[in-house]
Amino acid sequence: MGSQEDIPVGIIGASGYGGVQLTRLLLEHPHVHLAYLGGDSSAGRPFADLYPHLGFKQDLKVEAIDLDKVVERTQVVFLALPNGLAAEMAPTLVECGCKVLDLSADYRFTNLDTYEDWYGTKRQDRDLASTAVYGLPELYRQGISTASLVGCPGCFPTASLLALAPLLKQGLIDPNSAIIDAKTGTSGGGRQAKTHLLLAEANGSIGPYGVAHHRHTPEIEQVSSDLAGREVVVQFTPHLAPMTRGILATVYATMRDPGLVREDLITIFSAFYRNSPWVKVLPGSTYPFTKWAYGTNLCYLGIEVDQRTGRVIVISAIDNLMKGQAGQAVQCLNLMMGWPETMGLPELTFYP
Amino acid sequence: MGSQEDIPVGIIGASGYGGVQLTRLLLEHPHVHLAYLGGDSSAGRPFADLYPHLGFKQDLKVEAIDLDKVVERTQVVFLALPNGLAAEMAPTLVECGCKVLDLSADYRFTNLDTYEDWYGTKRQDRDLASTAVYGLPELYRQGISTASLVGCPGCFPTASLLALAPLLKQGLIDPNSAIIDAKTGTSGGGRQAKTHLLLAEANGSIGPYGVAHHRHTPEIEQVSSDLAGREVVVQFTPHLAPMTRGILATVYATMRDPGLVREDLITIFSAFYRNSPWVKVLPGSTYPFTKWAYGTNLCYLGIEVDQRTGRVIVISAIDNLMKGQAGQAVQCLNLMMGWPETMGLPELTFYP
Amino acid sequence: MGSQEDIPVGIIGASGYGGVQLTRLLLEHPHVHLAYLGGDSSAGRPFADLYPHLGFKQDLKVEAIDLDKVVERTQVVFLALPNGLAAEMAPTLVECGCKVLDLSADYRFTNLDTYEDWYGTKRQDRDLASTAVYGLPELYRQGISTASLVGCPGCFPTASLLALAPLLKQGLIDPNSAIIDAKTGTSGGGRQAKTHLLLAEANGSIGPYGVAHHRHTPEIEQVSSDLAGREVVVQFTPHLAPMTRGILATVYATMRDPGLVREDLITIFSAFYRNSPWVKVLPGSTYPFTKWAYGTNLCYLGIEVDQRTGRVIVISAIDNLMKGQAGQAVQCLNLMMGWPETMGLPELTFYP
Amino acid sequence: MGSQEDIPVGIIGASGYGGVQLTRLLLEHPHVHLAYLGGDSSAGRPFADLYPHLGFKQDLKVEAIDLDKVVERTQVVFLALPNGLAAEMAPTLVECGCKVLDLSADYRFTNLDTYEDWYGTKRQDRDLASTAVYGLPELYRQGISTASLVGCPGCFPTASLLALAPLLKQGLIDPNSAIIDAKTGTSGGGRQAKTHLLLAEANGSIGPYGVAHHRHTPEIEQVSSDLAGREVVVQFTPHLAPMTRGILATVYATMRDPGLVREDLITIFSAFYRNSPWVKVLPGSTYPFTKWAYGTNLCYLGIEVDQRTGRVIVISAIDNLMKGQAGQAVQCLNLMMGWPETMGLPELTFYP
Repeated sequence: MGSQEDIPVGIIGASGYGGVQLTRLLLEHPHVHLAYLGGDSSAGRPFADLYPHLGFKQDLKVEAIDLDKVVERTQVVFLALPNGLAAEMAPTLVECGCKVLDLSADYRFTNLDTYEDWYGTKRQDRDLASTAVYGLPELYRQGISTASLVGCPGCFPTASLLALAPLLKQGLIDPNSAIIDAKTGTSGGGRQAKTHLLLAEANGSIGPYGVAHHRHTPEIEQVSSDLAGREVVVQFTPHLAPMTRGILATVYATMRDPGLVREDLITIFSAFYRNSPWVKVLPGSTYPFTKWAYGTNLCYLGIEVDQRTGRVIVISAIDNLMKGQAGQAVQCLNLMMGWPETMGLPELTFYP
Repeated sequence: MGSQEDIPVGIIGASGYGGVQLTRLLLEHPHVHLAYLGGDSSAGRPFADLYPHLGFKQDLKVEAIDLDKVVERTQVVFLALPNGLAAEMAPTLVECGCKVLDLSADYRFTNLDTYEDWYGTKRQDRDLASTAVYGLPELYRQGISTASLVGCPGCFPTASLLALAPLLKQGLIDPNSAIIDAKTGTSGGGRQAKTHLLLAEANGSIGPYGVAHHRHTPEIEQVSSDLAGREVVVQFTPHLAPMTRGILATVYATMRDPGLVREDLITIFSAFYRNSPWVKVLPGSTYPFTKWAYGTNLCYLGIEVDQRTGRVIVISAIDNLMKGQAGQAVQCLNLMMGWPETMGLPELTFYP
Repeated sequence: MGSQEDIPVGIIGASGYGGVQLTRLLLEHPHVHLAYLGGDSSAGRPFADLYPHLGFKQDLKVEAIDLDKVVERTQVVFLALPNGLAAEMAPTLVECGCKVLDLSADYRFTNLDTYEDWYGTKRQDRDLASTAVYGLPELYRQGISTASLVGCPGCFPTASLLALAPLLKQGLIDPNSAIIDAKTGTSGGGRQAKTHLLLAEANGSIGPYGVAHHRHTPEIEQVSSDLAGREVVVQFTPHLAPMTRGILATVYATMRDPGLVREDLITIFSAFYRNSPWVKVLPGSTYPFTKWAYGTNLCYLGIEVDQRTGRVIVISAIDNLMKGQAGQAVQCLNLMMGWPETMGLPELTFYP
Repeated sequence: MGSQEDIPVGIIGASGYGGVQLTRLLLEHPHVHLAYLGGDSSAGRPFADLYPHLGFKQDLKVEAIDLDKVVERTQVVFLALPNGLAAEMAPTLVECGCKVLDLSADYRFTNLDTYEDWYGTKRQDRDLASTAVYGLPELYRQGISTASLVGCPGCFPTASLLALAPLLKQGLIDPNSAIIDAKTGTSGGGRQAKTHLLLAEANGSIGPYGVAHHRHTPEIEQVSSDLAGREVVVQFTPHLAPMTRGILATVYATMRDPGLVREDLITIFSAFYRNSPWVKVLPGSTYPFTKWAYGTNLCYLGIEVDQRTGRVIVISAIDNLMKGQAGQAVQCLNLMMGWPETMGLPELTFYP
């Protein structure tokens, strides 16, 4: 590609954790430049007031949200807003020719009734929503590459579905036997000052929330059903772990063929993800810790078979703000623009 | 009780985390005094060299292990040693009239073949072992109160079995459907300088270990089978969480009667634990965090039913070094001596 | 003491971290009972809704603040309120015969002009304020024992002054050379949902705040001046450390007699605190970590002399919510009631 | 620069934290390739066994140390070894034409007697040592650019000296008044399994070590004396903070001219570091937290003047393993090779 590859992109909702991750990634992406940084609560303020760690990039400013300006200045827009707001802006943006990547739940559902049930908001944009593609590249690469509107997955669904996909797609498990026990760092709660997310409350402690009722459940079920070719119901339990970033999903399922051994499954997973540079299937007896993925777009998968119980156990580790959010959005951008899927995305973490 | 209630007790293996917890608890117990503190690696050293936080109790010393002295000076001995060592000392101690509470795995198994299989050590003390009682007071209160030798449960089995017991005992679940996803603080690994337990490695990260092969599995299965009245196989996966203390066990099982609702189960659990002061069944929609139990002997149980999947989910939180180890041993001591079960044990944690 | 020793006490401001510590301590104190638990923001709510870790004490309720009821039901009241509010309530309470222990800054200053300058609030209660005693028992034991109104010290002043007192009182240092570099856990910021106290922001990071301008400076200077018998100016810098509880104050000062060695100072400190059960002077080459004091009312002091620079360095470690706040208030209560200074206060921490 | 700019470099001591940081940085550096990865303890093992987070670079292997191979294959070698070992290898390497960057203390001292006093090792390589340049680019840029042997600074000296340099160089402070109160993450202790670095011991706690006797003191004094043009004695106290990475140095000194205000000093610092891309002087009232520098080569400096005490307070924050170690070594490499000082080094951290 020539020097003309310098695409103007924008972020709406720059001041949250999703926005600041995107800002950082897009600043370092070789083929884009940040042409718009919008956010109402922080409008007019230097970005370094909100995030003083931005090194030499101290002159970034956040503007009040103005869709006319967005359309005028950018070709691609990332929406990093609370649920419900993207649905108000995306129709205008898409109509005016912008490609849109939405990080909220608004465009993740093929069936908007499900969205309305679980999110409690009525939707007026059903035509547009029906054109949206679910932004999990490992499963919907083709659709994303030609989409105008991408609904980027939630953090838990990303970790969970990458663990389940080969099993469901190949019919290796009883789909309804899947139990996903997930653990997340507190940044998943966003940059909101809530008591239970205070260090004094959350540190040195782990516990569950949203048991049997978390909103990421129908999202996991929609894609699982698509993979299995039938309606799938999953058990999903998130836990808050005393750490800043990272998601670990421990996924249990009953195997249809109890004769399969671990190495069989590692072979199957490796083949399934052969062309997916951001998924790393681990060798036998190796199970990932979330820190391995810290700050990277990688998903690590560790696989075990328990002959005694007839279950397969897959452990999936991602950075909730990267592969679980902003990094995956940039991965989708790469696909939409015809660039290599790995472009501009960090692969190597710092350790320790 | 009169002033004669001042029982001399001893600890062998005082320098590990189990030993120091016991030391602290027994120093504050109203009816015992510490008559022996033994440990080979730290023999002759002031205890405050190893644990400088012991406040005014700075004159405690650790002696070399000498069973004659133990027998001479104490009526009750706690063994806080690596697996395999208790089996070498307990026979002598019991024969000489000491009551013994062992914190290792040596006397937890009714079938020593299982022990030999999972722990890889041959046992010569089968007669004595057959007299040992499993030290989980909520299930074996009667036996403990008359035992000479108690095999105190592992930390994970304690949290797991208190969650499973009412379900198995009442036949409410398919026993083999039980999946236990457990999370522990790093103190569970003991005071051993292992690389993976360094703060620099373990902090900010969560991951599993011993997947499908952890040694606490057969211990959970033994008691589960006893409760269910049939052979039970469970799925157990421990995780290392970035915190010092605490275990959270999230237990999933398929209900036999899908018509049961959450309040039914809360009623059943409350009745089951009515006379168990250290188990606290939480009201609906409340799920425990490990910090609630920090430094106390309590086990908190939160209960949920998922009508969509037909599963019950029980969340169990304990302090791994208290109810999961030293506190439970003191609870057993209380039973063995005919004292109130709560004597000398902390109930209120500090918060935050 | 007889059975008449069961004093009714109250807490106003029960729902903050100071209030919940007091609640826990007073529930376990052998000579008091909690007769009033007041707080406007949480009025009418079960205390277990706010703090679900209270074990068996689940039936505590917080009432709306009503001074008539307080006076009617209690002999002693603890005020655990934001700065400025105690000054509105204490006059009534004292006038009606209640003894008052205030945890805010309102009654710490002998010169109310200083208070008004640093806290920005005008005061109408100068007569009453002039009768208040500064609640640091190690320095003002006599006054506290006969006081009706005690202004309990701030957390940083407690740790700092216990390190400085022997040096200033004996004229061993140049008073104006004192530099206090203090580190606190985030619970010092209270149970307020502020962004910078979120785990996601504060974890894995340390930094200073209020450099050269923190409000605890004049408080430290007031007592330092009292001890030195002249006006003293100190340098005080607090830092936010990524932990829940604890304060470490590292105090530097230039010695007047450069010939003094470490053992001289340890002797002097030990003598100074001989009758102070809550201060523990450590032996040579031992410096405290905050964890040693976790959950206890102890202050650990480690002392070093640097012959190369002519400075003494004292390291002081406390639990900010215990000796730095609620524990110290109970210590004052004990003095006011003529009880042993250690009554009802924890000495042994859990470790690790 | 042309395609010939692909310099073969080696690392000896790859398996420690310094080595793995260097590995990661050099893998991403645009003008070098890793031609040798040596380490005796891990010889023959895949690097991914030691550090499984290396993403796609799973085929790296560590070789046994063999200086002939190093000389044959590389132009530049990084030594990341315990103190004392570099002095055994550097003479051969330099003689054979390799440029050497040493991360240990061996080549930091202009006066080897000081080294022998503080490190307790006799040195045989005085001629070579006298040619070594201290690898702090902001102060010795010129010397580094022509050196064959660079002794890279310690982590604490880096943070401390960047805070002190403008003050000492311009004669703005009484040099002997400098007090450095430093806080480090536990990774500074290396990847060694020591009890006090266990998460269970270090988490939730802060405390000092090496008070008045830490080996980084003479290193800070050597450079301070060079800057001040006279012998300087400093007070240096390190603390272990409960976090993985990062150093915060809070530096106090008495100003010669008490009339200077904060803005004066900010101007002076900004001018001093105008050509130093890795030092960021913060605006007034802004003080850095260590997290801002996490994973980057930046040093953030916050500056305050206390008119009441006549002191300047400078707060310096770095990542101890980057600007404090491996990043700085790569910065030196860039200077030695005539490349831009920022090449291949991360500037933007992840946040939160």
